[in-house]
Amino acid sequence: MGFTPEIAEGSPFTLENIPFGVVSTSGSPETHCATAIGDFALDLRALSKQGAFKDKTVADTFTQPDLGSFAALPSGTRTATRQQIIDAVKAGAVDEKCFVPLKNVTMHLPMECKGYTDFFCSWEHCSNCAPMSAGKIPDNFFNAPSAYNGRASSVRPSPHGVHRPKGVYWDPFGSKSATYAASKALDYELEMGFIVSKPLPYGKALDINSAAEHIFGFVLLNDWSARDIQVFEMPPLGPFNSKAFGTTISPWVITLDALKPFSCPPKHPQTLSPLEHLRYGEGQRGTFDIKLEAHLVRNGTKYKLCSSNLSYLLWTPYQQLTQQASSMCGLRTGDLIGTGTVSGDAVENGKKVELACLFEATLNGTVPYKFEDGQELTYLQDEDGIVLSARCVDSNGKTVLGFGDCAGQIVRAG
Amino acid sequence: MGFTPEIAEGSPFTLENIPFGVVSTSGSPETHCATAIGDFALDLRALSKQGAFKDKTVADTFTQPDLGSFAALPSGTRTATRQQIIDAVKAGAVDEKCFVPLKNVTMHLPMECKGYTDFFCSWEHCSNCAPMSAGKIPDNFFNAPSAYNGRASSVRPSPHGVHRPKGVYWDPFGSKSATYAASKALDYELEMGFIVSKPLPYGKALDINSAAEHIFGFVLLNDWSARDIQVFEMPPLGPFNSKAFGTTISPWVITLDALKPFSCPPKHPQTLSPLEHLRYGEGQRGTFDIKLEAHLVRNGTKYKLCSSNLSYLLWTPYQQLTQQASSMCGLRTGDLIGTGTVSGDAVENGKKVELACLFEATLNGTVPYKFEDGQELTYLQDEDGIVLSARCVDSNGKTVLGFGDCAGQIVRAG
Repeated sequence: MGFTPEIAEGSPFTLENIPFGVVSTSGSPETHCATAIGDFALDLRALSKQGAFKDKTVADTFTQPDLGSFAALPSGTRTATRQQIIDAVKAGAVDEKCFVPLKNVTMHLPMECKGYTDFFCSWEHCSNCAPMSAGKIPDNFFNAPSAYNGRASSVRPSPHGVHRPKGVYWDPFGSKSATYAASKALDYELEMGFIVSKPLPYGKALDINSAAEHIFGFVLLNDWSARDIQVFEMPPLGPFNSKAFGTTISPWVITLDALKPFSCPPKHPQTLSPLEHLRYGEGQRGTFDIKLEAHLVRNGTKYKLCSSNLSYLLWTPYQQLTQQASSMCGLRTGDLIGTGTVSGDAVENGKKVELACLFEATLNGTVPYKFEDGQELTYLQDEDGIVLSARCVDSNGKTVLGFGDCAGQIVRAG
Repeated sequence: MGFTPEIAEGSPFTLENIPFGVVSTSGSPETHCATAIGDFALDLRALSKQGAFKDKTVADTFTQPDLGSFAALPSGTRTATRQQIIDAVKAGAVDEKCFVPLKNVTMHLPMECKGYTDFFCSWEHCSNCAPMSAGKIPDNFFNAPSAYNGRASSVRPSPHGVHRPKGVYWDPFGSKSATYAASKALDYELEMGFIVSKPLPYGKALDINSAAEHIFGFVLLNDWSARDIQVFEMPPLGPFNSKAFGTTISPWVITLDALKPFSCPPKHPQTLSPLEHLRYGEGQRGTFDIKLEAHLVRNGTKYKLCSSNLSYLLWTPYQQLTQQASSMCGLRTGDLIGTGTVSGDAVENGKKVELACLFEATLNGTVPYKFEDGQELTYLQDEDGIVLSARCVDSNGKTVLGFGDCAGQIVRAG
């Protein structure tokens, strides 16, 4: 019997969204592909087995245990498949047996994370952090998008426990005495990530105007960071174990098709004329107007930490992907690209309210957040949770689509 | 009919070796597992299909297209399998149809490279490079093994063409004017690598005394580097595109079983008492006495660039793996760990002869190698080849086993 879920006002999973994810349930414990509509997961494996997808290639990808095969299809095929799902649900043509309440599903990674790259492209983040770290804005910051390779094996789907890492750091801080102990400076970073769809072979560069073809969609990303370990290990090779203990992503992938109505130019005019490989044509508006928020959860209470917007980044996601591919290293389906921490410069009641990590917002743990109920926060305590959220709104501020939560909770070091 | 290959004096692939690799041939184009003995590849898939491996798990792993499944088996099983191969070949019990001349096989990656980490643990390399880069030895260098995450998608099996990368750098050098162009400072780095066997789940740390259980074996590794791009991008996030355009490994994996007779303590006594997680028991001698060489190949002529030895590294491979795993990021079968450039301090005829990259040996391209026939080398030219080799010798200096070549040739930027 056909069924069309009701979609409550403010729900992230509207018919304008149709995100892709990988789920399991107690009755169907093997991972399988799904989309989310209102409060339901729509089982795409079941739908495929019912013959809903006439294109055999598409039908086959939805019987795979993850979204890797679907993501690797040409973008035109993915676009058409998404539209077909929207049409079928709108027409009430989807068997109600294919729907499962979201509260009954366990989320998994959309696909194996092949490589994980994290960029550093927020002017506000960079200029807030510089006085407390390298001391100055890096010379290269305005010339090309900066990035480092992260650790792919510890990318996890929300929600999950994030153990407080042990690592090597200077103790006391600033001394030359190194210790191996649990981090005392555990931070979050509010970022987005995007996942590579069509692969690019080793030895090929990427034309920036074809970059969209290689992006499956966006997720929220929390780049958990241990600042004491980071200070120890950064010079000269960059972040390593200080960010390897966990990277959380929201498990539903929001496609470029869904985000297209929210494309916009980046907030900062690109001060230097971009180098040739980073210049894009008229058809590419650059980035997306995606509203971001981060909250602390402590003892069941939610405290707002910051808001921000993807469009604040100095370099666009297409420029980031093109810069990465310019080495001709190749791209693999399942590569995850982090946009870097997205901070902004807005001030409310004399306070900066778009500082997207605790290192910035608490001046490296020296000036706490003070919440109305008396709670304080410098760096994260055991049991503290961080929830990132994101949404795109219409001209009236009404949510058109959301990303679902990206949540993690600190677990005491073992 | 049984066959036992003759093994010429100096052959890398002795019965003391029995390396593991993945091959294809024109008659058998699907990749399959093999070992190398003398001038022959021994087809382990064919051997398995003939029922040579009574342990069904082992037999099954050798019908897989790569060595991932075999590597993930417990080390005891792998040790026994290697011994079984040695015994069968010695007894002349292996069907000659299972042997293929090495010159007729194409080599592939031993398994998918899941993650690639590169360490920085050579005191000589670090102290030679410091005056030309950061200006001083990093504060953390003696406290823990330093490393960065490299790009896994561009790890390739020897031999292959390495395109001269385009990238962003300061041009002229030292200016504040960035250009996107072909690198003018293309370098090699003589390293070894080791491949993770048994995985370690996310959230678990590694006891250093169990580290060997997680290592499948060693390969040679050339960490090709574009020094102009590296200077541009290093501060503050470390190497990225300057090392992403290609990493070459020798395709035969030399097991810990084969290397065991060559275990030895590291050359440098560890000056600071290692932190708790990096201290190992009596049973672990630390590292291996593996003799390394690098040659330039130009117009068909081979020119020696340097020699070195794995045991020169300040930190042992077990300490490197333990440090990486200490973040609890988990290890995946197929993770590749680079040891970092292995330089030494030996002097012959008033010249340092163990400088394992051109940045060190030519003082960043300012003092060329001058060879006897008049050829000169600063950084690599198009068509130049680099061949790395390694061997273990007995007390008379006779080769007991070798690694086979790790070769790559520079291809002009497209």
